[in-house]
Amino acid sequence: MARGFHEYFGTPNVHFGPYDDVKTPNVPVFRDQRMVGRLFESKEFAIDRRRQLSNLTQLYTEEAIDFIRRQSASRSCQPFFLYWTPDSLHAPTFRSAAFAGSSSKASSYGDALVEVDHSVGRIMDVIRGDPCLAQNTLVFFTSDNGAALVSKTDAGSNGPLLCGKQTTFEGGFREPAIAWWPSRIAPDTRTAQVASQMDLFRTIVNLAGLEMPLNRTYDSNDLGPVLFANRSENGEGAQLNSSMFFYRGDTLMAVRNGPYKAHYWTFTNPIEEFRRGIDYCPGSAVANVTTHRLTPHQKAPVLFHLVRDPGERYPIPRWTAEYKWAKRQLDAIAEQHQAEMQPGVPVLNICDRAAMNWAPEGCEQLKMCLPKPISAPYHCDWPH
Amino acid sequence: MARGFHEYFGTPNVHFGPYDDVKTPNVPVFRDQRMVGRLFESKEFAIDRRRQLSNLTQLYTEEAIDFIRRQSASRSCQPFFLYWTPDSLHAPTFRSAAFAGSSSKASSYGDALVEVDHSVGRIMDVIRGDPCLAQNTLVFFTSDNGAALVSKTDAGSNGPLLCGKQTTFEGGFREPAIAWWPSRIAPDTRTAQVASQMDLFRTIVNLAGLEMPLNRTYDSNDLGPVLFANRSENGEGAQLNSSMFFYRGDTLMAVRNGPYKAHYWTFTNPIEEFRRGIDYCPGSAVANVTTHRLTPHQKAPVLFHLVRDPGERYPIPRWTAEYKWAKRQLDAIAEQHQAEMQPGVPVLNICDRAAMNWAPEGCEQLKMCLPKPISAPYHCDWPH
Repeated sequence: MARGFHEYFGTPNVHFGPYDDVKTPNVPVFRDQRMVGRLFESKEFAIDRRRQLSNLTQLYTEEAIDFIRRQSASRSCQPFFLYWTPDSLHAPTFRSAAFAGSSSKASSYGDALVEVDHSVGRIMDVIRGDPCLAQNTLVFFTSDNGAALVSKTDAGSNGPLLCGKQTTFEGGFREPAIAWWPSRIAPDTRTAQVASQMDLFRTIVNLAGLEMPLNRTYDSNDLGPVLFANRSENGEGAQLNSSMFFYRGDTLMAVRNGPYKAHYWTFTNPIEEFRRGIDYCPGSAVANVTTHRLTPHQKAPVLFHLVRDPGERYPIPRWTAEYKWAKRQLDAIAEQHQAEMQPGVPVLNICDRAAMNWAPEGCEQLKMCLPKPISAPYHCDWPH
Repeated sequence: MARGFHEYFGTPNVHFGPYDDVKTPNVPVFRDQRMVGRLFESKEFAIDRRRQLSNLTQLYTEEAIDFIRRQSASRSCQPFFLYWTPDSLHAPTFRSAAFAGSSSKASSYGDALVEVDHSVGRIMDVIRGDPCLAQNTLVFFTSDNGAALVSKTDAGSNGPLLCGKQTTFEGGFREPAIAWWPSRIAPDTRTAQVASQMDLFRTIVNLAGLEMPLNRTYDSNDLGPVLFANRSENGEGAQLNSSMFFYRGDTLMAVRNGPYKAHYWTFTNPIEEFRRGIDYCPGSAVANVTTHRLTPHQKAPVLFHLVRDPGERYPIPRWTAEYKWAKRQLDAIAEQHQAEMQPGVPVLNICDRAAMNWAPEGCEQLKMCLPKPISAPYHCDWPH
């Protein structure tokens, strides 16, 4: 949790389990560095798995509102940063009792969505209600990935887009994003700019009037010119000519530039998993594209025009001039990207059960300390 | 064209061809009973197939505006009915030169959509500009079927819905519909009412203050209580408890009631067609559902909950109480429907080349009369 935040409230991992406190400790809830309870076990952090009920989103909402109010009261319009990431929409989803049955979706997922929407509304009300905040706050709303179709009806929909989370198809990567700052962004402005959450880093650094370190290359563009230009884009036109790189693990699967996307590798999930009912692309099958093994297409990448064909259904035929032209562009971009890439040192390929939250600071008082196994690091894979 | 209209302008069939004037006569354009030209051949009705250009939508728009203006001027707020059905969005799509390149879709389809949108706007401007019309006009905008995915990128998208036109999945049947009548329908009112275009018949008859004949049963509900209640529905709730019956030919393929839909037969298109690249469900494959032959499921219909699962991806498991309950409801509705059904006498199973538009009234003046073959009726199939 040492990521530069002054305050912290929440869990270090998502709520899905099961956790038995023997093989894996139950998920702790921290206030700053101190554990204040565990999911499922502490009354205030209970999750009723069977009925998919929990009060967590309400707690996170109160925390967010309290934090904003304290900033607003104490810092006389000084800037602050809040990162608010409810996890109730991650399967198994949950909602508080007041929202059970609130959605038209007839599902816990739908109810959880209504609840998060309601919470965002409450947070916005606080911001709108303070003259300084109402003038000076950028609110950015988005998701970390496409709907996890692997969770079937306990997850969202990617509309016409292909497949879901865990894949490098549009259903895995493309997200709605809403930026709110009425004094700088005109209502109903739309942009076709391709961007990623990584761009928020440079955007916020620039808004804070800071300089980025110059001794390294960041995969982050300043979205300021797009967000504050108040120029509606209609379709393909984009202000920054940025490319997008689609990875699984350290494999560059696909590259996008403008409306074109080239798949150099395709993969959904292994056929053995698929036969057991695990499916990253339920209901979808595009020949040569939704492959159940990691399939190379380097010589003849599968090319889509994402504006004409956002669903990645109709590969551009290889013999066309359009294919040849777009392939040349995207091949060059991929080559340059890979030539300039400085591989990082893996930090997630060492696992150690002792590193889990068996006995965090604060556990004694709660009587929630668990016996910590002896440290035994081993090499482990993160098979995305 | 003898369907009770006082005026007619347009073609008796859609523009797609090819027509060679030998095997089939080219599509005539009629003003009332009189041919005024042929598509492709007459300068004013030209369609440039290669560049997908035609002025037809503009002509139809001018006709509509002229008709409305004449009604408005001459009939002192007397009611009238206009049925306006541009066909530029049927593949091969076309747009006028002014709209070529107008859309973000980088396609003729996208441009044609922008053009129809623009035409609707022009028609609405005329209605809004006349105080009587602005007060007393119901405008109903919808489509006759889901996007024809068989036409690939020269057609629209059905978003998350399964398959397209020609099928009995949601992508074939479910349509957006917009009803406009500001003096009776509050802006932004939404309804979850399930309805069909057939319901417009009784709705309009009622608005006109007429009685429906009582000596037959109509598949038409009055939508007035839904349209004019100004009560927004959120999801499943519907005011009229109407069922929907999904046919291909005379086979009752599926039945919907409330959120539940039972598929008693499933079929996309024959495997032989599919192998030749004809695909009613591009990119989609749901086991036991997107079948390439007409597959019976009478004993164990495939059931979907269309609110939780609008994409028809996750059949409700047969062993669940929900399945058993919903199946019982839908089976009863299907049985009653079939017991009450009075089969009509087929009118489209006799073909006769002599019945085509070889030499309609008006052809002499245009020098567009074609030699009419001798009448030779034969039994023919309409293989939907």
